Amino acid sequence: MTSTKPIAVVIGVGPGLGAALAKRFAVGGYSVGLIARKESSLQPVQKELEQLGHTALSVTADAGNVSSLQNAFNTIRTKLGNDPEVLLYNASGFAYKSILDLKPEELQNSLNISVVGALVASQEVLPSMVKNGKGTILFTGATASLRGSAKFAGFAAAKFALRALAQSMARELGPQGIHVAHIIIDGEINTPSQVQRQPDRNIEAFLNSDAIAETYWQLHTQPRSTWTQELDLRPSVEKF
Amino acid sequence: MTSTKPIAVVIGVGPGLGAALAKRFAVGGYSVGLIARKESSLQPVQKELEQLGHTALSVTADAGNVSSLQNAFNTIRTKLGNDPEVLLYNASGFAYKSILDLKPEELQNSLNISVVGALVASQEVLPSMVKNGKGTILFTGATASLRGSAKFAGFAAAKFALRALAQSMARELGPQGIHVAHIIIDGEINTPSQVQRQPDRNIEAFLNSDAIAETYWQLHTQPRSTWTQELDLRPSVEKF
Amino acid sequence: MTSTKPIAVVIGVGPGLGAALAKRFAVGGYSVGLIARKESSLQPVQKELEQLGHTALSVTADAGNVSSLQNAFNTIRTKLGNDPEVLLYNASGFAYKSILDLKPEELQNSLNISVVGALVASQEVLPSMVKNGKGTILFTGATASLRGSAKFAGFAAAKFALRALAQSMARELGPQGIHVAHIIIDGEINTPSQVQRQPDRNIEAFLNSDAIAETYWQLHTQPRSTWTQELDLRPSVEKF
Amino acid sequence: MTSTKPIAVVIGVGPGLGAALAKRFAVGGYSVGLIARKESSLQPVQKELEQLGHTALSVTADAGNVSSLQNAFNTIRTKLGNDPEVLLYNASGFAYKSILDLKPEELQNSLNISVVGALVASQEVLPSMVKNGKGTILFTGATASLRGSAKFAGFAAAKFALRALAQSMARELGPQGIHVAHIIIDGEINTPSQVQRQPDRNIEAFLNSDAIAETYWQLHTQPRSTWTQELDLRPSVEKF
Repeated sequence: MTSTKPIAVVIGVGPGLGAALAKRFAVGGYSVGLIARKESSLQPVQKELEQLGHTALSVTADAGNVSSLQNAFNTIRTKLGNDPEVLLYNASGFAYKSILDLKPEELQNSLNISVVGALVASQEVLPSMVKNGKGTILFTGATASLRGSAKFAGFAAAKFALRALAQSMARELGPQGIHVAHIIIDGEINTPSQVQRQPDRNIEAFLNSDAIAETYWQLHTQPRSTWTQELDLRPSVEKF
Repeated sequence: MTSTKPIAVVIGVGPGLGAALAKRFAVGGYSVGLIARKESSLQPVQKELEQLGHTALSVTADAGNVSSLQNAFNTIRTKLGNDPEVLLYNASGFAYKSILDLKPEELQNSLNISVVGALVASQEVLPSMVKNGKGTILFTGATASLRGSAKFAGFAAAKFALRALAQSMARELGPQGIHVAHIIIDGEINTPSQVQRQPDRNIEAFLNSDAIAETYWQLHTQPRSTWTQELDLRPSVEKF
Repeated sequence: MTSTKPIAVVIGVGPGLGAALAKRFAVGGYSVGLIARKESSLQPVQKELEQLGHTALSVTADAGNVSSLQNAFNTIRTKLGNDPEVLLYNASGFAYKSILDLKPEELQNSLNISVVGALVASQEVLPSMVKNGKGTILFTGATASLRGSAKFAGFAAAKFALRALAQSMARELGPQGIHVAHIIIDGEINTPSQVQRQPDRNIEAFLNSDAIAETYWQLHTQPRSTWTQELDLRPSVEKF
Repeated sequence: MTSTKPIAVVIGVGPGLGAALAKRFAVGGYSVGLIARKESSLQPVQKELEQLGHTALSVTADAGNVSSLQNAFNTIRTKLGNDPEVLLYNASGFAYKSILDLKPEELQNSLNISVVGALVASQEVLPSMVKNGKGTILFTGATASLRGSAKFAGFAAAKFALRALAQSMARELGPQGIHVAHIIIDGEINTPSQVQRQPDRNIEAFLNSDAIAETYWQLHTQPRSTWTQELDLRPSVEKF
């Protein structure tokens, strides 16, 4: 299944944003590598992409586990036959807990998934990007990227850290032609489960995953003279 | 020359970003109202738009003068025959001076152009936007929107203030369907004069005004479920 | 009444923070110049300071009027016989209005009081500070210094602008030995009127004006190797 | 050596800020628990404190190791006979490396020392603080708390994360009477080794560790009506 198209890798694939990102970049002409922890998260996305005639390769991996993630990239490179030109890092842990209840392992796990995994994935795609003098790496942030709310310590610490990583990478790699950006998702996405849980909520009060994916695509296609490093996205009715 | 197309107004039109914004929204199907202080800034843009078959109306006004700006909007509404659906506020004063040399009037002037004018212009377009439950207002920011550097007090004060206005308007008007966003331009734009002055500088080290305008257009066309309130734009090689 | 003590000037004196600042710096060994718009705001503070044996000079002036403020400084310099070594700028306008109801003159007025007045006052004290290679200028900010909330456009624009001025001055003047800092007051101060209006509210849920003044004093006495440019202050129970 | 005085614990003790913090809180009436990785970092501080007549207890521990840090607190509680009322968290890892050279383990290590250790230490002192409705926890930040510079990914990620933890704790614990603040140290501290390395640099161009410690003390003694959550500290001549 060696790909003649360029390759985009999406990490953190589920029925919401991950699926929409995969579809958008497939439509844009990319073969997509899909990484998620569970086979059941990947299957429906893989299937939909194939039915639309796109090339997709699903690999299960734990984004919080260094070698697991490295192996997934090895598989993608080998099977798709090339180095990724786009990395969309969309994985994150979550823990809503009082500071007294948050276990150190939970914090470590959140940091591993959100930021260590982001470093590992970046290091997998960067050597060829640096060699080619181009590439795109987009990181998914959240409200908690800018604000440490009560009981969000585990999530906010990881999301703040990811934002630091994104900035540091942008400053180092931008001059080398690699576009690193950070997207702050401020609100709930219209994943099927979220929408079902709140049947009375206006659908426009959820972020639309396809619209988010369109923004990622727009970031990817910005010319290098005019790059965005950070933007936010939220529904018009969201309080912020 | 009553316009059957929707109307976009660009304030702060010159050979750089203002011209590019006017063109992008004209291409997107808008009749454009052009406002600048000098006739000589407007003429070439007006001419180019007409040669491309677009509808444009140029009006001179001082963005830092309340009634001057209000009159310009009256002219645009009367002549184009409708209320603007898009406002692109791109005017700003500038003063690079030591804090001891910055005259109070210069600071006031900078504030009047950047932020009071932005309020006045917004108030001209908002009543119909609120009535229709839709509209787009985009404000042009700068590096100095986020950082008060030495000798930039006059400019930074005005740009900080504009950012506050943009946030406050977004929070009030977003739920009413009006998209208010703030774009931070961090670097020099490829205006003819800037490029000529630095003949040895790589053209990609300047922000491309057409690419900036494309970003404004993308912001304008975001669905209301998925709006950006703020983003930055800079060349890949820019230090930040 | 020529002062043998160094002089501190407080602008924006009322029964709350202004009075507390005046008292704290008087206790610290300063003669204080008091500036407020109304005689009635100054009288009780002047009287209290004199009863405590301190030297105080009250001058009415409109902080939003350039020559009025300049005249007040002339009076202070002439009557107290020396140049101020400390400037505490505590004046601000306020308007809570929908963006459609905020009059351009109200925005200008808010900007004039909060930021143009701050520039004018700084320019009155800076020449001698620069000559002496020392001095302290402290600006009072607010929640709205960091966030433009709905209906706070007029206040937030002015407070954002003041923060920009403070940063720009700090960067220019710090290396010349002048300490410029910005204090973000996030919550309600225990002014008599505020406390009376909310009789059931725990007194610790208000910021204590004497404690705020103590913080200003601490900032003033920091050695130049170890200066704070910005800090926030809020009650322990305040949501933020 | 059971202490009749209240107890403050300093984590990250060396010849610079840690030593100064220990001394300042000892002078303020506290018995101090000192934690550092190396015995050689603790010895001189312990000795100096004892010579000044203060009570100090040194315990070696690795702040990046959960059980090691927990054990250190057990030792302190047992030997000093009481629960700490003050926690000063001053430990951090450091790595200056290109994003391609930063090993995932180095990033994890930095996160463990800066933020997981901060959580663990907080959880050791919080139960009694919550019970008593008072306590102070101060975290040491850095320039990299606010900015992810090129080649600072490992340090900035950890410092951003610590800032998130501090904010989240402040929001949860403030209303319970526990003061959590974050101090941004922006510049080099006058540790003996730093000063020796730059013999021609003006001593005032280094942050003074005793002055920093004084600021921590001032934060600790703020009344709960008027708390600072964050402030910065830098030399007057520092570029920022």
